[in-house]
Amino acid sequence: MKMNRSEILNELIEISIMISSISNLNNLLDIILKKARDITRADAGSLYLKENDKLIFLITQNDSVKEINSKLKTFVLNMDKRSIAGYVAITKKILNIKDVYKISRDFPFSFNDEFDKKNNYRTKSMLTVPMIDNEKNIIGVLQLINSKDDSGRIIVFSKQTEKIIESFASISAVAIKNVQLKENIKKAHLETIYRLSVAAEYKDMDTGSHIKRISKYSELLARKLKMDDHFCELILYASPLHDIGKLGIPDAILTKPAKLNADEWEIMKKHTTMGYEILSGSNEELIKFASSIALNHHEKFDGTGYPNNLSGENIPIEGRIVAIVDVFDALSTKRPYKAPWPLDKILKEIEDQKFKHFDGKLVDIFLSNIDEFLKIRKEYEN
Amino acid sequence: MKMNRSEILNELIEISIMISSISNLNNLLDIILKKARDITRADAGSLYLKENDKLIFLITQNDSVKEINSKLKTFVLNMDKRSIAGYVAITKKILNIKDVYKISRDFPFSFNDEFDKKNNYRTKSMLTVPMIDNEKNIIGVLQLINSKDDSGRIIVFSKQTEKIIESFASISAVAIKNVQLKENIKKAHLETIYRLSVAAEYKDMDTGSHIKRISKYSELLARKLKMDDHFCELILYASPLHDIGKLGIPDAILTKPAKLNADEWEIMKKHTTMGYEILSGSNEELIKFASSIALNHHEKFDGTGYPNNLSGENIPIEGRIVAIVDVFDALSTKRPYKAPWPLDKILKEIEDQKFKHFDGKLVDIFLSNIDEFLKIRKEYEN
Repeated sequence: MKMNRSEILNELIEISIMISSISNLNNLLDIILKKARDITRADAGSLYLKENDKLIFLITQNDSVKEINSKLKTFVLNMDKRSIAGYVAITKKILNIKDVYKISRDFPFSFNDEFDKKNNYRTKSMLTVPMIDNEKNIIGVLQLINSKDDSGRIIVFSKQTEKIIESFASISAVAIKNVQLKENIKKAHLETIYRLSVAAEYKDMDTGSHIKRISKYSELLARKLKMDDHFCELILYASPLHDIGKLGIPDAILTKPAKLNADEWEIMKKHTTMGYEILSGSNEELIKFASSIALNHHEKFDGTGYPNNLSGENIPIEGRIVAIVDVFDALSTKRPYKAPWPLDKILKEIEDQKFKHFDGKLVDIFLSNIDEFLKIRKEYEN
Repeated sequence: MKMNRSEILNELIEISIMISSISNLNNLLDIILKKARDITRADAGSLYLKENDKLIFLITQNDSVKEINSKLKTFVLNMDKRSIAGYVAITKKILNIKDVYKISRDFPFSFNDEFDKKNNYRTKSMLTVPMIDNEKNIIGVLQLINSKDDSGRIIVFSKQTEKIIESFASISAVAIKNVQLKENIKKAHLETIYRLSVAAEYKDMDTGSHIKRISKYSELLARKLKMDDHFCELILYASPLHDIGKLGIPDAILTKPAKLNADEWEIMKKHTTMGYEILSGSNEELIKFASSIALNHHEKFDGTGYPNNLSGENIPIEGRIVAIVDVFDALSTKRPYKAPWPLDKILKEIEDQKFKHFDGKLVDIFLSNIDEFLKIRKEYEN
């Protein structure tokens, strides 16, 4: 179906609004490539992002070789003129090739036919488009392959298509940059929380890896519990602060090499309410949420925990989540006074504490997804 | 100059790319209103943003009553159908009025002629446009006034204009939402740093207000020094962490009610290197920057400071900035062992320390902008 120029531009504006609203980078890249192929009626396509001085090949889509879409591995290209994508990234100019097997030897680049050979595909026409942001920086490269006419015949990409895809590529560049900026701020935020939480426990035996594991375990358990994205992100950020109240505990108790006596233990238990005091009173959702975790992560499902002897679902879910992952991590870790427990003993202990220390529903979800928790444990070993 | 439909749409795409790239909310709103007026050839216009269940009137522009542009105060409208903007926000439909003085009594809203009377202006045609994001949420309202034809005569806004401004308003809504999201993440980040820095000094005499003052003073001094925006933002976020190393200082020294003896003082001085150790080794720019401040904020310009006896411009600029504002804050504040100094004595001390404790250039800039520092001091009193 042919559209006139105004209709195409109108659609481009619709697409622009849609694309600008996507906040997940992978979804965004997928949709950019899909829409770019729609606009140019391309059978296949790939997308590269610039990172430092390299081009990272991230996704590919191919209507004729469908099984390829998820199989291809990321690879890295140097930003030089020997590859087609590199050439376009450096010159910042669109490149419209009629047939990639007939590229003149005057050009510094050539076509890499590895994919075609492996998949019995025939790449012919190719439109390679730089994604340039408003400050004229190159953000990435779109590569569109085999434009088709109404009858499905492969044709060269038209001049009009070039104009439209150029606008689309700029819209995409800005959208990608916005998402990257947002992700960078979030990354910095999480890193800050990790650093400062470690700092807060400077005198304690716990290390930075403990903080990160609790953070990742909590998020994973929340996801498995099918909590919404917002909750999962909150607990990722807030759970590292669970022991922040230890700042208020005297050094002599915090770092005592022997077992605490009853009086000392009572003081030690105050790290929950002290953490709550440090964090509560904030208007910031994240900090409020963290204050609840600090307060409630030592409550037990049967009501024998501290500081408030809450029981069952009166314990906020974030407290119940951190309770289980905090114990899992403590048992998994070497401490001055104990070796790490073997896995079977840990799992038995958690199973035994079903409806005693822990919410039984959470125990079931935790145990049936133990492999993923072990992956995190391995990734963030001390 | 008339443009055809394709030209207009092409321009709309250009504007969309430009608008999506703006990261400062005030600039963004200004440009949205300006462009909306360009597109609709409107003599005047206003912009409202939705906040909770209210509409906040934020900016207005008027080519005929120029002095009004910066003078008008923010005000708040209820989201109900009695005002034109409220009506549009609720119905989410564009409203094109030929003459606001002839609005039928069948409508629930009426025109408020206060502005016209005060400024001897005649509002006639009015186009009020909901800014709706991709999830169909209302983000704000654009109100455009007195469309002009080529000869400057006031005419009604055309049907074609309605279509285009509707697209433009959606583009704007998404851009505003993106900036708001980013600002919310940043706000949460800063609040987290404040909270955790206070936590870190839980046992020290310093309060949360101290942390915030140091943060704001440092940013202000950096701005007056004409450092770029990025640096100013970095120091705003990183300076609250300057004393994080106090976490590593034993309670007995940190909270000693009497003067420290020589040995204790040597240990206390280690909070600079301990802070550096806690924060260094991060890949995150902000944390790296904070590690430099922690390390260098007790160096003195004449080389008599600690821990490394650096002097002059060998002390990183962020260290020299925090040095001066940290002393200013300490002298301004009541401590268990001292009353706050009177202002004239503080300023004399800072002047006296020119090229001794402090970078002389910074002293000059600090003293000649003292009023703005005092404003911060007042705003963040203990």
